[in-house]
Amino acid sequence: MEHTYRLVIRCPDRVGIVAKVSEFVSDHQGWLTEASYHSEPSLSPGDPGWFFMRNEMRADSLNVGIEEFKRRFAVLADEFKMSWFINDSSERKKVVILASHASHCLADILYRWHSGELYCDISAVIANHDNLRGMVEWHGIPFHHVPVDKADKSPHFQAVDALLQQYDAGTIVLARYMQILPAEICKRYSGQVINIHHSFLPSFIGANPYYQAYDRGVKLIGATCHYVTQDLDQGPIIEQDVERISHRHNKDDLVRLGKDVEKIVLARGLRYHLEDRVVIHGNKTVIFD
Amino acid sequence: MEHTYRLVIRCPDRVGIVAKVSEFVSDHQGWLTEASYHSEPSLSPGDPGWFFMRNEMRADSLNVGIEEFKRRFAVLADEFKMSWFINDSSERKKVVILASHASHCLADILYRWHSGELYCDISAVIANHDNLRGMVEWHGIPFHHVPVDKADKSPHFQAVDALLQQYDAGTIVLARYMQILPAEICKRYSGQVINIHHSFLPSFIGANPYYQAYDRGVKLIGATCHYVTQDLDQGPIIEQDVERISHRHNKDDLVRLGKDVEKIVLARGLRYHLEDRVVIHGNKTVIFD
Amino acid sequence: MEHTYRLVIRCPDRVGIVAKVSEFVSDHQGWLTEASYHSEPSLSPGDPGWFFMRNEMRADSLNVGIEEFKRRFAVLADEFKMSWFINDSSERKKVVILASHASHCLADILYRWHSGELYCDISAVIANHDNLRGMVEWHGIPFHHVPVDKADKSPHFQAVDALLQQYDAGTIVLARYMQILPAEICKRYSGQVINIHHSFLPSFIGANPYYQAYDRGVKLIGATCHYVTQDLDQGPIIEQDVERISHRHNKDDLVRLGKDVEKIVLARGLRYHLEDRVVIHGNKTVIFD
Amino acid sequence: MEHTYRLVIRCPDRVGIVAKVSEFVSDHQGWLTEASYHSEPSLSPGDPGWFFMRNEMRADSLNVGIEEFKRRFAVLADEFKMSWFINDSSERKKVVILASHASHCLADILYRWHSGELYCDISAVIANHDNLRGMVEWHGIPFHHVPVDKADKSPHFQAVDALLQQYDAGTIVLARYMQILPAEICKRYSGQVINIHHSFLPSFIGANPYYQAYDRGVKLIGATCHYVTQDLDQGPIIEQDVERISHRHNKDDLVRLGKDVEKIVLARGLRYHLEDRVVIHGNKTVIFD
Repeated sequence: MEHTYRLVIRCPDRVGIVAKVSEFVSDHQGWLTEASYHSEPSLSPGDPGWFFMRNEMRADSLNVGIEEFKRRFAVLADEFKMSWFINDSSERKKVVILASHASHCLADILYRWHSGELYCDISAVIANHDNLRGMVEWHGIPFHHVPVDKADKSPHFQAVDALLQQYDAGTIVLARYMQILPAEICKRYSGQVINIHHSFLPSFIGANPYYQAYDRGVKLIGATCHYVTQDLDQGPIIEQDVERISHRHNKDDLVRLGKDVEKIVLARGLRYHLEDRVVIHGNKTVIFD
Repeated sequence: MEHTYRLVIRCPDRVGIVAKVSEFVSDHQGWLTEASYHSEPSLSPGDPGWFFMRNEMRADSLNVGIEEFKRRFAVLADEFKMSWFINDSSERKKVVILASHASHCLADILYRWHSGELYCDISAVIANHDNLRGMVEWHGIPFHHVPVDKADKSPHFQAVDALLQQYDAGTIVLARYMQILPAEICKRYSGQVINIHHSFLPSFIGANPYYQAYDRGVKLIGATCHYVTQDLDQGPIIEQDVERISHRHNKDDLVRLGKDVEKIVLARGLRYHLEDRVVIHGNKTVIFD
Repeated sequence: MEHTYRLVIRCPDRVGIVAKVSEFVSDHQGWLTEASYHSEPSLSPGDPGWFFMRNEMRADSLNVGIEEFKRRFAVLADEFKMSWFINDSSERKKVVILASHASHCLADILYRWHSGELYCDISAVIANHDNLRGMVEWHGIPFHHVPVDKADKSPHFQAVDALLQQYDAGTIVLARYMQILPAEICKRYSGQVINIHHSFLPSFIGANPYYQAYDRGVKLIGATCHYVTQDLDQGPIIEQDVERISHRHNKDDLVRLGKDVEKIVLARGLRYHLEDRVVIHGNKTVIFD
Repeated sequence: MEHTYRLVIRCPDRVGIVAKVSEFVSDHQGWLTEASYHSEPSLSPGDPGWFFMRNEMRADSLNVGIEEFKRRFAVLADEFKMSWFINDSSERKKVVILASHASHCLADILYRWHSGELYCDISAVIANHDNLRGMVEWHGIPFHHVPVDKADKSPHFQAVDALLQQYDAGTIVLARYMQILPAEICKRYSGQVINIHHSFLPSFIGANPYYQAYDRGVKLIGATCHYVTQDLDQGPIIEQDVERISHRHNKDDLVRLGKDVEKIVLARGLRYHLEDRVVIHGNKTVIFD
């Protein structure tokens, strides 16, 4: 993998942003390997519209150190009221995975990580069941079994919270975790918690979506990868996909087919996130794929 | 197109149905060109499950006339408590299309009919706007402009109802008709009215689904072809499909992309219906494609 | 449709292109509604790689006339050895369609044009059969029946050539034309002739691809929209898609299903072309969708 | 999983087959859980066409033992010149996997087997590299490293052959094995060797299909699961699928995206095979999915 810096920007739209940013990059000899832009049109007279940009440039092309580059860019960013960051592609994001007893999404992520397809550190897996320990530990990753007491879930969430902080989690993946994270964790890790929902949202919100899909007789089932917010199943959608079904498929078939969609959709969404390809904008996302 | 008879059956499941029906067909020298079966498993101890069957046989292979064949089959059907019918592939179903001002679904159906891809008679097109008259009349099909008075829609529906009866409509297609049919028409033509809904149901029920999809930031939009029942947008689904979208698509793009999905999905659903490939079972369908 | 100018660029890659171009646009108050870039990496030490860019800007935002804008830009373009053009979104491309007797692609294009979805002028339809005259003339478009004499096709091509020049064709669409254009026409209209091939190229090159697909027992059939070059079926691919099939589909079904894929793929490819979203690069394309 | 018997039939078509077979099943109280039929039409006057059938019936519903059932059915089968078999769903097929050093298909199969999604025994994995040993042995499956000497591959194939016989392999999966099996092994295990080809056959036969796809500029890449015959890449196709790509994807991206298609397509194809849903007919397959 090439060593690059990723400059990601979001700001009110106006003439000249691309020129100024590109000039800045060019003045510092930045060699762009990817450059993507998006303008979200104005929705009302007072609204200027929004501008989004992702530049990826070769690390070895810059004529100043990255810290100096950031300092200088901050001046430009202030002028355009940008929210922005520059990430180093060689710095692995620290990922903590929360799971339950279903293995398909977890196994898929572990495989992709192990084979080098997902570039990150998987610091730990936390699960409220113990059945996945062997698989996780074989990969050399710490596994924490933190059971849930249905009568009082707060000890579980306190323990999870402590582990997230202990591992300094930068990204949290809910790999079929099946628990609703407390609002304060959602808030603290805003834009960092990725969930896979086993339905084509906004269809079939709630429990047992495949059974709901079966009962409604739909002809496609799907899955949704989204950021977790305090509003359950309402967070910004990163990726979705569907699979065709027919009357020949029973409920178990839907669950089985759904697993494949879920893991593919989660893997794509996680990859976009790890490569800084997602910009959250209100309740929507811009994906620079 | 080969001249065939289509025998379609729905009955409580039990051992020996296929044998009895196949023996009956075979005893009358029926040469099967297609044969499809489906068992819907029992959901509770008292429920035997349900059985569905579609046999298509060459008209010229039978050793008795079709009326005699039907009379004899009725005895067998009673024994198994079947709901059933036998349709002659050479008898064109009489279709009346209800439209508004949007042309894409109507133009698509007319083209497929004109080019021989959809085998049916299109008896008439009824629309509450007059803009599609030229296109319809060029195809040699009567066009009726029946405006809607928002203050009182009943004259509109009475006129529509009268035309449906005048044309002896067997199948009614709502090609983006945008009006809610009165319950009594839905009831009278139960299983005969096909609608195209411009959303992947059950997502985005209600007005402006593409705008809803845009606001929610979904990554796929879709369309649903379903039978109309008295419960709006809740009827048995015949066919669905989706199209991938991204942040680069604005609301107008979603409408444009949606049109292609809508007409493809409606054309497929209508084809299944015209070829007697759909069996309605409660709020679901079995599609023998 | 918003009135815009589309600046499309192709040049050897180097640091600073985006900056210079964006600065130029910004200095002339150009408000970008879309901006897309692509770097094709270097394949060998001497090869700098290639750079592609498409900027779409509001016509009313420029502070100079478009001719002056072009004159000034030419200086910059020379410096970077660009091949480039600026098109006015309000100027309709002049399209001539060549057809045979199959109607599905032609009808689809005519409908999309008629309903305003495809923004262009359709100057004429030329066909070697007369059966589509009525449909074409109903749309108010001149129809020329130019038969093909299999023993000597040159009179046909001379007549076609004369008509192309008479109508000053800017874009030529082969809508299932089924004839192989002479090399000199391909050459003269390089990058302007769009064909729909009824196969997922490079599979099933040659005659009757659906029959070939049937005989090989593939599980998907497809279609390919590509620019026509002197090497038959080898030109740059603009768009492709596929449709799932099974053993239940006979050869006629494949042809029928293929028609839907063909017209969708051609419509998408033609749209990309009309909106100046395609950059040809050797035998490949960059599509700024 | 329900305990069933699967009766699969292939014979020349004629009137009465379904009736006779269904009557036979019904006379033995066989409760059908699935029943599928297919008629391949006659291609020439002397050709009766072909008939295919798959019946799945509850094991506990039969009024005789399965051996007696088979003996009796053989009489009927002879009358209709059927090739046929009856498989017991509870008898796990013995699968041997051949691999090289690429892990994605192997890991996917192992996961699906481990999680109970693929019902079979995986007797052993044989690979010409040693890097996958750990993953295989963690699953409790014997791993054999049988290197290939490029100068003389026969010792490798002799060792592989001996292992196949030692493990009494019923199904052989080439999970990116990258070697061409000797004709005599192909012959001996006809209809039992499943390969995943990393291209949408018949496109890009030969080495490095993703690089070929990249160079040709196609817009979709795919994978093909097929039975291995002595004609390389020409065996009956079981399943295919594709993934959309664009100019933004480089060769490595195509390889990465291809891996996901390959493993999904292989998993589907293998599942069809294990559940006796595939009937080979010349160079094509009938898939009763």
